[in-house]
This record gives sequence, C-alpha cells and structure tokens, in this order.
Amino acid sequence: MIVALAGGVGGAKLADGLASLFGSGLTVIVNTADDFEHLGLPISPDLDTVMYTLGGIANAETGWGVAGETWGFLEQVVRLGGPSWFRLGDRDLATHVLRANALRAGKGLTEITDQLCRHLDIAARILPMSDDPVRTIVHSVEGDLPFQEYFVRRKCEVPVTGFTFEGIAKSRPTAAVKGALEATDLEAIIFCPSNPFVSIDPIISVPGMRQLIVDARVPVIAVTPIIGGAAVKGPAAKMMRELGFESSPASVAARYRSLVAGFVVDIADAQLAPAIEAMGMAMHATEALMKGKSDRRRLAEVCVAFARSLGARGP
Amino acid sequence: MIVALAGGVGGAKLADGLASLFGSGLTVIVNTADDFEHLGLPISPDLDTVMYTLGGIANAETGWGVAGETWGFLEQVVRLGGPSWFRLGDRDLATHVLRANALRAGKGLTEITDQLCRHLDIAARILPMSDDPVRTIVHSVEGDLPFQEYFVRRKCEVPVTGFTFEGIAKSRPTAAVKGALEATDLEAIIFCPSNPFVSIDPIISVPGMRQLIVDARVPVIAVTPIIGGAAVKGPAAKMMRELGFESSPASVAARYRSLVAGFVVDIADAQLAPAIEAMGMAMHATEALMKGKSDRRRLAEVCVAFARSLGARGP
Repeated sequence: MIVALAGGVGGAKLADGLASLFGSGLTVIVNTADDFEHLGLPISPDLDTVMYTLGGIANAETGWGVAGETWGFLEQVVRLGGPSWFRLGDRDLATHVLRANALRAGKGLTEITDQLCRHLDIAARILPMSDDPVRTIVHSVEGDLPFQEYFVRRKCEVPVTGFTFEGIAKSRPTAAVKGALEATDLEAIIFCPSNPFVSIDPIISVPGMRQLIVDARVPVIAVTPIIGGAAVKGPAAKMMRELGFESSPASVAARYRSLVAGFVVDIADAQLAPAIEAMGMAMHATEALMKGKSDRRRLAEVCVAFARSLGARGP
Repeated sequence: MIVALAGGVGGAKLADGLASLFGSGLTVIVNTADDFEHLGLPISPDLDTVMYTLGGIANAETGWGVAGETWGFLEQVVRLGGPSWFRLGDRDLATHVLRANALRAGKGLTEITDQLCRHLDIAARILPMSDDPVRTIVHSVEGDLPFQEYFVRRKCEVPVTGFTFEGIAKSRPTAAVKGALEATDLEAIIFCPSNPFVSIDPIISVPGMRQLIVDARVPVIAVTPIIGGAAVKGPAAKMMRELGFESSPASVAARYRSLVAGFVVDIADAQLAPAIEAMGMAMHATEALMKGKSDRRRLAEVCVAFARSLGARGP
C-alpha cells in the first residue's frame, strides 16, 4: 500500500505512474481547497485532474479537462449572457452535474468520487482530503481573491502575499483517509510534485492529518515541483518569489522538513544535496520531469525504491 | 397586442408565425406543467421549445432541443453511470444550468425566461403560465406516471385514463400574464394547435386564468391540433381515443366551447362546420398544417383575420 498526496497536473502524473505500479494498492489523497462553485455547480479541479488522468481521459493538450472535449455548452452559455472565464467542456460537465446531483441527494464527496472512479475503471482509490468544504483564499497585493479567480480569471498575474484555507479548522480527514494512513500494510507516503502552498499545504493542514502521517511510521518522501529554479507547471515558483522564498527545491524541502524524510529533486538540482541533507532529509536526484507516460512510471519506481531505502535505514 | 396560449412544437410554430407578424406585440403564455427536474436541473420543455423556435435555434429534425446540437455531455454521463433516457444536448444544457443557477439565486421563472429571450433576440414576450410549480401526473392503466416518464421514457405507449396537475390549486397567474390579458390594446387571444389535455388544459386551469380570458372581452379563437382524425405531432389523438373521445377536431372544439368563440380546422375537416357551429362557435377551415416557415406566418395571418372578423361581429 502506498499513499500519495496530490494537487493538480504534476501530482496527477506521478499518481498515474504509481497507479500503473500499484493499482488498487494506491490511495491518492487529493487537495480540495481549490474547489469552488460555478454556475451553481460544484467544481473540484484537482480531484478531477487526478481522476481524469488515472482514468486515461485527461486532456493532455490543455492540462485540464477531458480529452476530445467539445464546447457547445460554453458557446451557448455565452450566447445566453453567461460567463466564459471558467471553461467548462461538454464532457467535463457530466462530472459536475452528476456530482452536484449526488451532493444534493446527501452523498459525500468521497462516496461520489468513488462511484465516478469505478465507472472510469480506476483501480486506485482517489480520496478528497476531506468531505468538509475548504476554500483557499489568495491574499494578494490587490486584496483577497477566491482561488479560481486568482488562478483562472486573473491567470496568477496578481502578486500574492499569503493564503488562508477557509473552513480548514472545522474540516476533518475522512474515515477513508484515516483508513488509508492507518493501514497496517502501508509502505510509504509520497508527496507528489504539486504546489507546496496551495496543493500540499491544504492537505496537511486538515486538523489531524499531520499526526496521521507521523503516526503511520512509514518513510515519507516528497518530489519537488521546482526544477532548476522554475516550476514545471503552474505558479509555484512565482509564488515562492512573491512570498520572499528562493525559488528552489531547497525552499520546498524546508517547508516539508517536519514531515518528510526523503526529498527527490531533478538531476539539474543535484548540487542541493548538502543543503537538503543539512535539514535532516535524505535527497535523491533523478529525471524529475515527466514528459510521457513512461516517465510517470519510471519516476514512480524511483520514488518507491527511494522510500524503501529510507525504510530499510529505519526512522 | 395578441396573446397566444401554447404548449410544445405545434404551438411554438404558430407562435413563431404570430411573432413574425407582431414582434413585441405578441405575448405567448406557455404551459409549464410538463416541467420536471432531471439530474437536479429544472427542465421546462414547452417553454424551451417556444423560446428556441422564436429564437430561430430550434432543432427542426428532432422537434426539440437546439439546432446543431452535440452530445458530449450525455455520452459522458452514460459513461459515468448516469441516465440516458432524457436526452440533454450540450447546447440545450446551457439553458438548464443557467436557469437552475438563477432559480437558486431567487429569481422567478418569468424573469429568467425574459433574460434568456433577450439574449436570443426574441422580441415577443414568452411567459410561463405561472411561476409556481405545476406538475402533470399521467394516470394510466399502469398507474400514475410523471409526465416526462410517460412522454419520453415510455414514449406515450401506456394508455392514459386521465391527468392531474399537481400544484395547480396553489398556482397563480403571474403579474406579467395578468398584464398581458388585461392590456387595453389586446386584440385577440389564440389557443395554438397544442395538446388540449396536457398543454392548453394546464394553462387555463391556473386559478383565475379562465376569468382573465373571459374578462379580456376580445375574440378568443383556437386552432385544432388534430387534422383528419390524427394529431399532427404528439399523443393528442391517441389520448382522445383512450379517454373515450372521438379523435376529431370537434372533440377539441367541445372542450374549448366555454372560452372560445372561433375554431380553426384544416380544410380536410371543413365538413365539421355544422357540428362546431352547433356548439355556438364560428369555424374557419384553412391549410392548418405548418410544414415550412412561410406556413407559420400564413396560418398566423389567417388566425388573426378570423379573430378580427369575430370581433367585428361583436361578442
């Protein structure tokens, strides 16, 4: 059993590699703090990216949504005077409408995600970090913005000063999340290469989550989302600079040091070993950029081997 | 000013003809008793058929939905284990999602329909018969069925024994409906060629509606939805036989006699004049089948001329 923590695209790719190795032996705990409501529909961007990626229907061109997408709905929404800034594709919309309907019928996000995954023939378990609503508020030089306003509408242009996860204090890890982290056959926990501020931080900020990770007493490793000073995708590096951090894998490692025993960087950043080891973490350098499907599986293999090597060395 | 009462396809066609003559001088009061909720979305089939037809985007091939429709949403819903019996197209869905969102925001169906119509450049006023929910229950030899279950899922195959309009007693005509029927410049009221049982009956069953029609003191005419013993479209003729009526325009005329002063039949049914005149109604025979766009306008012209001739003869 492997547990992975993931946000959107990068995290989904490594999770996909892990799923190809472990199948139903993988549980992915996914950030839901960038969930929001659009046109009255509940949207879970990270959950959907992970689900579509593991289901083999992710749109590789856009990095979000469903492959072979069409846009009749959005075109007609615009014609009828509705908003166009958040691009809901016709196929993607099926997820949101079915989820909205199931939520209104009183089902939880965990149960709904399970059902969707079953229909997409996904063997791995994909779990929202919580069934309770958590919403990232981006504090910026122009004031507070809901996450998707910042991320999609404003294209991450506004400099950020910090983040609040609304609702986090009242949120709880689900029984399924607890079960995965308390499983006796759990072998390792892997923080996928996701944004440390707005993807991984919300997950480990759910009250009780850090303790569950610590109490698992298995090797915990993290994979850098920053390669050679730049984020592979998304605003991670830009956020780091705006928040006063050096845009470096070492800054990510520093954030994770209290939880993580091993840190995976790209070979381009191999020179960081002394700095990262000085934080009390082991470091492993490998090709961390996942271009194709085979890269996902290879990086997953490297990560698991690295974690196992840490386990062999004891906590 | 003309007021038309309409249900779905046939009614929408005549309303379109009237709209081409009167533009903003036309108000169409539309049946909402076959409205229902599907996947948590409020669907108003007749309202949408009238709106799409007058907006020039109706799907002429199917008789429902939007022209140039695509089906990505429905395909994905099925893949995700959802129902396929009610075919929601991608473009059509824009109406339902925007409407659902506006209803949740506390807007009424009349206001929402107005906004949608404005974006579709519809000059005529399209009004739901009521903002209060009314739902047709079909009593059948197999028990009670919600209307869309009967109409779409069961394809009208189950013999009917009667209808109940749930919620009708508590429903009220809207201020807009009242305003249209009380307008001092109202010239005529036209019952479009719609199903007398499940399209026109619900409209005139809204408490107060009959009195508003009577009090308008203008010529009221009806156009037959039955030509030569058969319904042009839909289950009207089948319903008549199952309910023990003769499948004839005369049976429709008989239902409307207390409200209607003039009845329009197809030339194929011209021989009914003595029977219909014996009910105290004037009758006019014309080409009542609307195949093309020009037929709609021509029939509309004939109807208005007929109504005016009745007006000239006094009430």
